[in-house]
Amino acid sequence: MKNTFGTSVAVTLFGESHGAMIGAVLDGMAPGVEVDEDFIARQLTLRRPYGAISTGRVEPDRFEIVSGVFEGRTTGTPLTILIPNTDTRSRDYAPLRALARPGHADYTAWAKYHGFADYRGGGHFSGRLTLPIVAAGVVAKKMIGYKVSAELVEVGGVSREDALASYREEALPDGGIEEKDTPGASEIWKDVLDEAIREKDSVGGIVECRVTNVPAGLGEPFFDSVESLISHAIFAIPGVRGIEFGDGFRAAAMKGSEHNDPFDTADSSGLKLHSSVHPSKNGAGGVNGGITNGNPIVFRTAFKPTSSIGKAQETFNFATGEICTLQIPGRHDACIALRTPVIVEAMTAIVLADLTRML
Amino acid sequence: MKNTFGTSVAVTLFGESHGAMIGAVLDGMAPGVEVDEDFIARQLTLRRPYGAISTGRVEPDRFEIVSGVFEGRTTGTPLTILIPNTDTRSRDYAPLRALARPGHADYTAWAKYHGFADYRGGGHFSGRLTLPIVAAGVVAKKMIGYKVSAELVEVGGVSREDALASYREEALPDGGIEEKDTPGASEIWKDVLDEAIREKDSVGGIVECRVTNVPAGLGEPFFDSVESLISHAIFAIPGVRGIEFGDGFRAAAMKGSEHNDPFDTADSSGLKLHSSVHPSKNGAGGVNGGITNGNPIVFRTAFKPTSSIGKAQETFNFATGEICTLQIPGRHDACIALRTPVIVEAMTAIVLADLTRML
Amino acid sequence: MKNTFGTSVAVTLFGESHGAMIGAVLDGMAPGVEVDEDFIARQLTLRRPYGAISTGRVEPDRFEIVSGVFEGRTTGTPLTILIPNTDTRSRDYAPLRALARPGHADYTAWAKYHGFADYRGGGHFSGRLTLPIVAAGVVAKKMIGYKVSAELVEVGGVSREDALASYREEALPDGGIEEKDTPGASEIWKDVLDEAIREKDSVGGIVECRVTNVPAGLGEPFFDSVESLISHAIFAIPGVRGIEFGDGFRAAAMKGSEHNDPFDTADSSGLKLHSSVHPSKNGAGGVNGGITNGNPIVFRTAFKPTSSIGKAQETFNFATGEICTLQIPGRHDACIALRTPVIVEAMTAIVLADLTRML
Amino acid sequence: MKNTFGTSVAVTLFGESHGAMIGAVLDGMAPGVEVDEDFIARQLTLRRPYGAISTGRVEPDRFEIVSGVFEGRTTGTPLTILIPNTDTRSRDYAPLRALARPGHADYTAWAKYHGFADYRGGGHFSGRLTLPIVAAGVVAKKMIGYKVSAELVEVGGVSREDALASYREEALPDGGIEEKDTPGASEIWKDVLDEAIREKDSVGGIVECRVTNVPAGLGEPFFDSVESLISHAIFAIPGVRGIEFGDGFRAAAMKGSEHNDPFDTADSSGLKLHSSVHPSKNGAGGVNGGITNGNPIVFRTAFKPTSSIGKAQETFNFATGEICTLQIPGRHDACIALRTPVIVEAMTAIVLADLTRML
Repeated sequence: MKNTFGTSVAVTLFGESHGAMIGAVLDGMAPGVEVDEDFIARQLTLRRPYGAISTGRVEPDRFEIVSGVFEGRTTGTPLTILIPNTDTRSRDYAPLRALARPGHADYTAWAKYHGFADYRGGGHFSGRLTLPIVAAGVVAKKMIGYKVSAELVEVGGVSREDALASYREEALPDGGIEEKDTPGASEIWKDVLDEAIREKDSVGGIVECRVTNVPAGLGEPFFDSVESLISHAIFAIPGVRGIEFGDGFRAAAMKGSEHNDPFDTADSSGLKLHSSVHPSKNGAGGVNGGITNGNPIVFRTAFKPTSSIGKAQETFNFATGEICTLQIPGRHDACIALRTPVIVEAMTAIVLADLTRML
Repeated sequence: MKNTFGTSVAVTLFGESHGAMIGAVLDGMAPGVEVDEDFIARQLTLRRPYGAISTGRVEPDRFEIVSGVFEGRTTGTPLTILIPNTDTRSRDYAPLRALARPGHADYTAWAKYHGFADYRGGGHFSGRLTLPIVAAGVVAKKMIGYKVSAELVEVGGVSREDALASYREEALPDGGIEEKDTPGASEIWKDVLDEAIREKDSVGGIVECRVTNVPAGLGEPFFDSVESLISHAIFAIPGVRGIEFGDGFRAAAMKGSEHNDPFDTADSSGLKLHSSVHPSKNGAGGVNGGITNGNPIVFRTAFKPTSSIGKAQETFNFATGEICTLQIPGRHDACIALRTPVIVEAMTAIVLADLTRML
Repeated sequence: MKNTFGTSVAVTLFGESHGAMIGAVLDGMAPGVEVDEDFIARQLTLRRPYGAISTGRVEPDRFEIVSGVFEGRTTGTPLTILIPNTDTRSRDYAPLRALARPGHADYTAWAKYHGFADYRGGGHFSGRLTLPIVAAGVVAKKMIGYKVSAELVEVGGVSREDALASYREEALPDGGIEEKDTPGASEIWKDVLDEAIREKDSVGGIVECRVTNVPAGLGEPFFDSVESLISHAIFAIPGVRGIEFGDGFRAAAMKGSEHNDPFDTADSSGLKLHSSVHPSKNGAGGVNGGITNGNPIVFRTAFKPTSSIGKAQETFNFATGEICTLQIPGRHDACIALRTPVIVEAMTAIVLADLTRML
Repeated sequence: MKNTFGTSVAVTLFGESHGAMIGAVLDGMAPGVEVDEDFIARQLTLRRPYGAISTGRVEPDRFEIVSGVFEGRTTGTPLTILIPNTDTRSRDYAPLRALARPGHADYTAWAKYHGFADYRGGGHFSGRLTLPIVAAGVVAKKMIGYKVSAELVEVGGVSREDALASYREEALPDGGIEEKDTPGASEIWKDVLDEAIREKDSVGGIVECRVTNVPAGLGEPFFDSVESLISHAIFAIPGVRGIEFGDGFRAAAMKGSEHNDPFDTADSSGLKLHSSVHPSKNGAGGVNGGITNGNPIVFRTAFKPTSSIGKAQETFNFATGEICTLQIPGRHDACIALRTPVIVEAMTAIVLADLTRML
């Protein structure tokens, strides 16, 4: 199926970074779901790079829904989101045509498409293609009604707790804590990010996603397990290196008596549950045997550091067949992970919409 | 698609632990691939639990290929593998009918199938269903010709290196190292496993899989990325908690200059490559932009500790609606992770067979 | 997907005529549907050839359901039906290995599978593979609850009405009509069939299928239209040459005012309707814009005459590359169409089960 | 999958008649296929209604390819075609909102989408959605290289031969036959069409499609048979009532000795063959056992008369729940079948592109 994903609710992705536009078709929506275009627009801004001028590209991220919505609600027919590419300074990319940027898909695209792919700005492989996913995710989230919420828990190897402690110390040198502050990730990890920019380098990060108010019974035993479908969708986001559910990799070092979740009927755990029976600790991340158990679905996603950096790198030139040194000009996005929580939420919402309508 | 996975090469899984038989249909095989039934039989034994008597169930794991093979080779039509369930002492499970064993799918199966599922021995959720996957994987591996090889790198929190050092110290108290020794996982981590058995508890582990001799160009940009498809298949294996490719979660704490792979044309890395151009370090695990880059595909999978343990656990009784204490009788498999490398290989081979035939 | 069909309810088909067994996996069933094995056995006998000895093969058509059913009801997990091949006199087919029987798939199988296919008795292309479809169809029918009913309306170019008139005249030479008689197709068209047998030839037929008590709203606008899915499934039955819905090919010669269905709210049409609003004439065969309109779904399927005949035919020898004359030994099934109404019903029920669970 | 069709080459359809635009995504194209936008534009004009003013809507049918094409060739990534709706006089349709036009999908859309669908001009069910299919088909045709050619063989019950004879008699009253003349369908059947217009009525027609130069070996034994996939796609075209391959419904009245195709190695049949071995008569329409046999694929499609007619019709009003009389204002397209050969070709080319890339 290549660029279409899903069974009952399916999303098809298309477009190149420097083509006329990019977009997605979201098929299988329930009819009658409210579509709030203002909210979509605000969600799209959350995907903006750290420091608006950092990537040297300022797109307004205008979008248009050209089908599947009528009088403000989904019709039930395919919903198509288009996002025009307006700031496509293609001339910048011509010298890069024959160069495989390390960490990018330039070389693999060349191997796969025999040199016919649009190479400008990453072409079809551009992270911009996650924009229509974010828009589609907003609609999917509205349909399912579960709360899907992702946030950064680590940037550049520094945990949220540590970064927050430093941030508050700096912001309030007298030691007072201003509880009302809800600083953004770029503020919390400002030191880490600024250092990366100074060094013409980049950093990665880890995003945690929690889905609450999910009913028990979604998902299938093996191939369409909740983890299978979510990981499938999450690895479609550029830059993902790993995913883990519940106790994740730590579970491999736990005893069974430690990792197993005794069942409980009280909601003393503070978890927002759909029914009163549930595993008590949620080490399984809300899923047993591929099927939701009523606990929140919890998973973490590791994002690599941005591939485009200012430092000189060795690479390969397709035209000459030689190894050469590449210094990517301009300023770069210091940390793509900052832009990803809203994408993780969108992918998750689309998968859950599919599972919800998949009998 | 529920219990069918794949596009050009697809596998369908069926059966319950205590039904007449379990099996799989492997569709889309190239015709003319040799099928070595003796080798399949040997691969199936690798899935045996640690300590043959440990689970109290000794199945000979006989299998029969009833379609899709003619005169020792695949025909190109659906290949069906059947594995009869011979040692199905169903009476053992009757008292468990209304009990949700912690860590198992009993509760979620009940929620999903409204009480109609076969509850005996985990029913359709049994780990036994990975047996036909192993058999199918052997055929898929033969078709693709790439080397797919998985091994345990950590058990009970102890790395292979540390366990091996202890093992050799104990085995050879005079400090000499017998290079010819290739001890099995159950020997290397014998201390860890024996402790778990003594404590009526269980341990988890981490499996690393490497695929070498893969051509560049397999996989798709987003939803059918190599990582998306492999993770989809791997999370179908019972007990998986996480997966990571290349540098994995560690990548999130690396700098871009550290994680990026400069390109190289020499094979000085010692990696077995398909073509002469390749990233030099393989931090991406053989995949850029969802597509193989000619480096080995490398990923790690975290397995939880066995859910069935001898220790008393709190649980829920469907019939009475009450929380009660459960002590699962008999001896249990101390570490399911030991049995999984051959399953991880099989799932990977099936995905790569699909990608290889997916134009 | 090759040998798997369906989205929410999917069927996978496997086996060869002279292998160990043939079978099907029916996935996506609702849990709790009663499975009546005696009724399935009776339905399978309806697929028997005209004159039990006619094809020289007497299979008891025993079947076994080895998964997905527990205590007489579907569990919701994949339901697997196996039918062993007991009367496989493979030696009969060896001389045919290199001969392309006209009308059969011998030549195309050779072209597709490069000579690796099991050639005995048609191999995977055998009409026997419709047996597990019939069994699966019984379960699907029970699940949906709509009445799916197919019957022959033409055999050997003679309509049911004409054949019935002749039959009654012969049976009751005094002109009296015995209303209680419900003769089978092989009695009604006995003259036509006997003549074909005498001439060592074969005849075709047309099957009409009606589905009543279907709700309005099943199906999708374009690619998953009711007609698209039903025709897809029906053309999977060996020997089908055409399908038409409602007025069918006759519609092409009608005026719009004649073919259009004015809407009606009364049930004066005698059609068994699901709701009170419906098109009055049903020229559309129960489907508008791909979606059921509450009228009965009505379609007709044309079956070709049996390909295997006793007469000498020209054909091609793969081994020698030469045209030669083939006379297929033994007696043959004079009319496969007689065996197909139960298969048409089964395929239709499976499609409707899928549409019913496809939100 | 609802609005996506295909496996290796897949098409996704979206849009409503009076929304901003309609379009299609064609995924899975081989990279490097030439895309001739002028030729696409000319093909789109073949879908124009009989008498440009007849439907009262004059769309220029401008289209834009916004992804998947670079420097005049396919890139291998999803190819997206957009066609803006410019002449959307939505006010015309408001009075029709609650009226189910006979033969249209108004009632079924209302039943399926619970009143949320865009009702204007048929919404998503509009025949306009075949426009992007035509454009996609041109690209698919170029990729496969087989000749796909469809033409009307019957309109309003009058065969092409009869209509052509009358046309030539009228055009050349002196009996001379002007061989150079290649009149269009609207000229050949002018009398039939003019009569329908005068009567404020409509007529149907039959389209025959032939695919030549197809290799043997495409297609699958059962569910993905060539006939299954082509019929699936053809029934997605609005207004189709039936499809038949080769001898079609006539085969049901033939003897086996008459319908069977003896094999031949000479090309004396005048058929353009891919290899020298082939069935001699092509009664099977180029397909045995679901797989191409090297003969041309031949099938016929029956189109119903246009549903929108000027005559008064009975119908149902959703708002009032009452039966009422509807007279659809304006002039109407007398025969949709005239516009369909190019759509039939496009659908067929897309299916064959899929089969060609489906290993």
